[in-house]
Amino acid sequence: MYDQIVIGAREELGSHTFTPEAIIAFARQFDPQPFHLSEEAGAATHFGGLVASGWHTGSIWMRLKVEHGKRVAAERAAQGLPPRWNGPSGGFKNLKWPKPVRAGDTVTYFTDYTGKRPLASRPGTGIAFSLNTGVNQHGELVFSFEGSVFLPM
Amino acid sequence: MYDQIVIGAREELGSHTFTPEAIIAFARQFDPQPFHLSEEAGAATHFGGLVASGWHTGSIWMRLKVEHGKRVAAERAAQGLPPRWNGPSGGFKNLKWPKPVRAGDTVTYFTDYTGKRPLASRPGTGIAFSLNTGVNQHGELVFSFEGSVFLPM
Repeated sequence: MYDQIVIGAREELGSHTFTPEAIIAFARQFDPQPFHLSEEAGAATHFGGLVASGWHTGSIWMRLKVEHGKRVAAERAAQGLPPRWNGPSGGFKNLKWPKPVRAGDTVTYFTDYTGKRPLASRPGTGIAFSLNTGVNQHGELVFSFEGSVFLPM
Repeated sequence: MYDQIVIGAREELGSHTFTPEAIIAFARQFDPQPFHLSEEAGAATHFGGLVASGWHTGSIWMRLKVEHGKRVAAERAAQGLPPRWNGPSGGFKNLKWPKPVRAGDTVTYFTDYTGKRPLASRPGTGIAFSLNTGVNQHGELVFSFEGSVFLPM
């Protein structure tokens, strides 16, 4: 429900370490560019080593988001609270990968709720906005996008 | 190179059929939501059946984009032409999945070049803009984003 969204609230979704094996396995299936396929080929590019496909970084965000949602749902059920809000995505804006994710990096993903408003065009429905980020073990931003979700009011 | 970008030009990257097995394999790794994991669970949701993760649809776009680039590079080399333009991505805007990709659907991906301009802040560099889309076998738009790429002038 719309009322559950608290502006300024932050959720930590979880952390993931990108192993060279997993980076290469993803790239062989979905992004066969040299800097995603081997340390040696990556070293010969401006990346200077093996880096994860941006779609890999995003797919791991998705997994941690889903797993976080399941944990929250279980906690709420255990406490006898009503189900967590849920709704269809309004799409992604400004999806960026500001720095590469290198083999061995650990990325921690966050969702910050940045705003919400009723939809004039759809009475009884609201839209909530979030900034979604991934930060590596050095505190550097490696992934971000602005998300939105439609919710019953 | 910037000069190679022709506004209004369209590239067809290729087509891909999303099998139920591949949809489920991707979802188990990256997006374990019921409507991505089985036909039966999907049938019980508003999707009415098994649908691909949006990150799967995007990852296949990436693969077809890379493979298309390799084909064009080989053709240019065979014709004695200079290498194809190449440059870093400026990120994605307005990434959307307007309709679900269902098990068995075939998606054809396109890139349309929509604009380009020199970068005032970086003399000698330009930016080119594209609209990237995926269309299913019924002609319905299932995937789109606005891309940009930085290129030497």
